[in-house]
Amino acid sequence: MGLIVQKYGGSSVADAESIKRVAKRIMETRRAGHEVCVVVSAMGDTTDELIDLAKQVSPILEGREYDMLLTAGERISMSLVAMAINSMGGDARSFTGSQAGVITDQSFNKARITSVTPGRLRAALDEGAITIVAGFQGVSETTKDITTLGRGGSDTTAVALAAALGADVCEIYTDVDGVFSADPRLVPKARKLNRVAYEEMLELAASGAKILHLRSVEYARRFHVPIHVRSSFSQHEGTWVRAKEEKVEGETVEQAIIAGVAHDTSEAKVTVVGVPDKPGVAAQIFRTIADAELNIDMVVQNISAAATGRTDISFTLPVGDGRRAITTLQKVQPMIAFEALLFDDQIAKVSLVGAGMKSHPGVTAVFFEALSNVGVNAEMISTSEIRISVVCRADVVKDAVAALHTAFGLDAEGGEAVVYGGTGR
Amino acid sequence: MGLIVQKYGGSSVADAESIKRVAKRIMETRRAGHEVCVVVSAMGDTTDELIDLAKQVSPILEGREYDMLLTAGERISMSLVAMAINSMGGDARSFTGSQAGVITDQSFNKARITSVTPGRLRAALDEGAITIVAGFQGVSETTKDITTLGRGGSDTTAVALAAALGADVCEIYTDVDGVFSADPRLVPKARKLNRVAYEEMLELAASGAKILHLRSVEYARRFHVPIHVRSSFSQHEGTWVRAKEEKVEGETVEQAIIAGVAHDTSEAKVTVVGVPDKPGVAAQIFRTIADAELNIDMVVQNISAAATGRTDISFTLPVGDGRRAITTLQKVQPMIAFEALLFDDQIAKVSLVGAGMKSHPGVTAVFFEALSNVGVNAEMISTSEIRISVVCRADVVKDAVAALHTAFGLDAEGGEAVVYGGTGR
Repeated sequence: MGLIVQKYGGSSVADAESIKRVAKRIMETRRAGHEVCVVVSAMGDTTDELIDLAKQVSPILEGREYDMLLTAGERISMSLVAMAINSMGGDARSFTGSQAGVITDQSFNKARITSVTPGRLRAALDEGAITIVAGFQGVSETTKDITTLGRGGSDTTAVALAAALGADVCEIYTDVDGVFSADPRLVPKARKLNRVAYEEMLELAASGAKILHLRSVEYARRFHVPIHVRSSFSQHEGTWVRAKEEKVEGETVEQAIIAGVAHDTSEAKVTVVGVPDKPGVAAQIFRTIADAELNIDMVVQNISAAATGRTDISFTLPVGDGRRAITTLQKVQPMIAFEALLFDDQIAKVSLVGAGMKSHPGVTAVFFEALSNVGVNAEMISTSEIRISVVCRADVVKDAVAALHTAFGLDAEGGEAVVYGGTGR
Repeated sequence: MGLIVQKYGGSSVADAESIKRVAKRIMETRRAGHEVCVVVSAMGDTTDELIDLAKQVSPILEGREYDMLLTAGERISMSLVAMAINSMGGDARSFTGSQAGVITDQSFNKARITSVTPGRLRAALDEGAITIVAGFQGVSETTKDITTLGRGGSDTTAVALAAALGADVCEIYTDVDGVFSADPRLVPKARKLNRVAYEEMLELAASGAKILHLRSVEYARRFHVPIHVRSSFSQHEGTWVRAKEEKVEGETVEQAIIAGVAHDTSEAKVTVVGVPDKPGVAAQIFRTIADAELNIDMVVQNISAAATGRTDISFTLPVGDGRRAITTLQKVQPMIAFEALLFDDQIAKVSLVGAGMKSHPGVTAVFFEALSNVGVNAEMISTSEIRISVVCRADVVKDAVAALHTAFGLDAEGGEAVVYGGTGR
């Protein structure tokens, strides 16, 4: 018995049948004696349809009115879920982000939650009701305008409400069984992880794992909210994301050294060729990039060739920002006096993540041997205490991920293939 | 220069093209120097689509959650209209009913507006912005729940905002040129009326004219809001609905005796046969009907046949309520001891409306002569100071309407057919 926050994504509430299935699941949780607060995303394609409509009336897809438009999707799904529960004899009440007390700053389209005042939710829960909250949205404290939270917004809403309500767990429902040791589409032997530390989940999310958005994990870590990632299509235990030191009842298995292998093919590489190798020039380049509000990921500067006094600087960034990065740098070419710009979108980033690698010195050696054995060349390298990432050619990403997965003993026992969306145990 | 409230219905904002056209029209009004507050309905079929979704998840189509669901439609249209205006260089801001200060009672699905506190609208208008408000919705004062206003809700929202903001006029945009002397689909010679008194419009609306909902006209009369019904597809003057005594600048034409002929084929007739003709029995029947929350329209009691001591009582009500009326009355048959129940849905109501008939004694005679000349039999009759209505067979409704239209000199001059949706002048 406790308070459970459940979040259902767009694929879990894609149509009337899915909504009824989710309603049934929520009812079961309530009947088991728990207080339940549910966060829902918009149904399947609703948000895309609203964006299509918006494109037809305006070229400006941002700002106050655009946020107001987008929030309609969650308003529809939340009231339908509540109606479905009520028709099954439950007592469900839906609340918009504003009604639920999700207070944000004034940054339309990417608002940050500044506080949560869940008074109406608490009152409804106290009366025994199930509360259904629209994800992805809030209300600005100063202007009372409706805002949206941007990518990963519904996960973040769920974690924020779990923190504010003092929930025992925030369950994130998705269409797979949990967090896997690698993408099962690339690695059939990928295993579902039973638990992952916040720090590992942060690195996995930052390295391309799509299952949880970075922002919601950051929020959960900050407010000590245990996350349980699980499938809305099965009753299996999923993956617990929580603080490393927390003991889970009945858990006896030692924490693995490595949590998993993540990959990301959504980035491109820009190389600034022939940069004068003198103090301040690299800073000029990155100041230019930052002023254009381009977020870069990995950076490598080659060792300068003494003969020419020039060097090359490479960085990666989301492929969609590539064109803007190039035009921005072209403008400052006369000032910085580099020789050329190269753009390469045929790259992939492969990352090995695990809190255990901090105390295991051999990890780096095994990592590069494994890549070398399958002929994968590392073009860029970046590391943190619990992560090693390399950039390689896009067409060898599968080989690289599989090789690392095997080398670090992550393959499922018995060599049995793990079905994507299946049990994974 | 003044403050204009404009209301655009679902057909005026049916798709992206329509929304852009409406946005242009709003911009023109603003550029002419007026303050503009716009009320919009949901786009074309949006509300029907939401109702379809609701039916798939629940058999209960009412209550708090259903209202929350339905309000999504106006939220979508209002933000799209605002985006379209902003993309044309205007400054538009959209507001939900709640944000606009439309306060209602707690009756979900048919809430009544209890007060309007348009502080945010006034502030936005003072800053020169165009305000776009979601019609059909409000927020309950006590529970802060979102409510919908039921049928005619967007017209009522517009009139209520016009009253609260002290607007000079409330323009109701539709897909025809105004209020006509009869339905042009039945009477090709129907004329657009230049002005109609509130009382006439109330009688026309109650008699089946669909163009304005009764409730919005009642609200307008109470708060002295001039309504201008006009087409969103043309620039023509439409029909002014206002107090009879108000003089319109430049108006010289004498007010006609008769405003128009309305008809209604949405009712059915119930006859209670062989009712004991003694005091209190009719009261029992109508108390039974009232307790079942059935709204009846016309009532006729036959003269009692002295031999039997029994009489027949007929009444009309919306055809959709027919089944409920019959089952309700069947339950009390043992107590009331009537002989039989007849149900007839092949009826039509035809009404002649005109403030001028009060002082013209010959109207009734001309009315029945006209019907008699085309062989229409009046089965039930009801009158007010400014209206005569009869119930006739449904298959002669066109003949009846046309005959009355001609007899009272309402046919358009020159015998020219008035094109539905055309100028009508």
